Amino acid sequence: MTHEELLVANALAFWNLAISRADKLFLNLTEKELDRAVAPGKNRLIYIWGHLAAVNDSLFSLMGIGQRLHPELDEVFITAPDRTAVNEISAADVKKAWTEINAKLSSEFAKMTPADWLHKHTAVSDADFVKEPLRNRMAILLTRTAHMAYHMGQAALIEKQ
Amino acid sequence: MTHEELLVANALAFWNLAISRADKLFLNLTEKELDRAVAPGKNRLIYIWGHLAAVNDSLFSLMGIGQRLHPELDEVFITAPDRTAVNEISAADVKKAWTEINAKLSSEFAKMTPADWLHKHTAVSDADFVKEPLRNRMAILLTRTAHMAYHMGQAALIEKQ
Repeated sequence: MTHEELLVANALAFWNLAISRADKLFLNLTEKELDRAVAPGKNRLIYIWGHLAAVNDSLFSLMGIGQRLHPELDEVFITAPDRTAVNEISAADVKKAWTEINAKLSSEFAKMTPADWLHKHTAVSDADFVKEPLRNRMAILLTRTAHMAYHMGQAALIEKQ
Repeated sequence: MTHEELLVANALAFWNLAISRADKLFLNLTEKELDRAVAPGKNRLIYIWGHLAAVNDSLFSLMGIGQRLHPELDEVFITAPDRTAVNEISAADVKKAWTEINAKLSSEFAKMTPADWLHKHTAVSDADFVKEPLRNRMAILLTRTAHMAYHMGQAALIEKQ
């Protein structure tokens, strides 16, 4: 592999590690366990899981690599704070969405060349991208991997009890 | 910049973003505020800050890019769980160590070429590295950036109170 291919492979391994850690936690919890909050008055695990699924789903449009699969997640897990959504989404449906979204992302990511990763993301204009070439798809991949880690750190507060 | 240089620049911007977010939180807290736990019975902010400083300091040896600056942090912030260390380290000393460590890392990172980033880290053998070329310094950079995000997610639980 070339240097640029290896660097992309590093970033994808980093993403896959975050997905596998989240899988290991969330896929093994019962509905009752998913209903626990990470700290008194804070988000429940089911909310964090749905939130991560929604944010990962937003990568399709943000990277310009396809249509998102589950826009219905946003209202419940992004717009509404935990415990306030008018309509709920079941743990089974979050699990299904999470699995589908990450499988499709993985499949799309596998097709991308280093040049594809350096392509601008869709939230930056052509003019701004000329001045700020790091506002690319790779930046989205890295920051959204950290976004998973951020919430996994919160989830770990109750996992170890 | 070449593709490989841009990909490295993305990873460094990712690291710098995590450092600046941690700076923004920790450098503005009083000693009393740093003494708060992120959730009942969980780590205090001062412990998380010292822990992040210690883990970042370990990158010098793990990447083979110099001598670490503050090995005294490990006993208090890695080996000992929070509130159990025999000797304490003051908030002022954590701040000094954190700032020095990150400044030196930043200075060393700035000298590294894409090939340097793809060099094996020191915790993998030559033989294993041949089989697993992603066990390189870039993997360390990415996973330790996520490590900061993991604990920043916990710290955010009280920041917003």
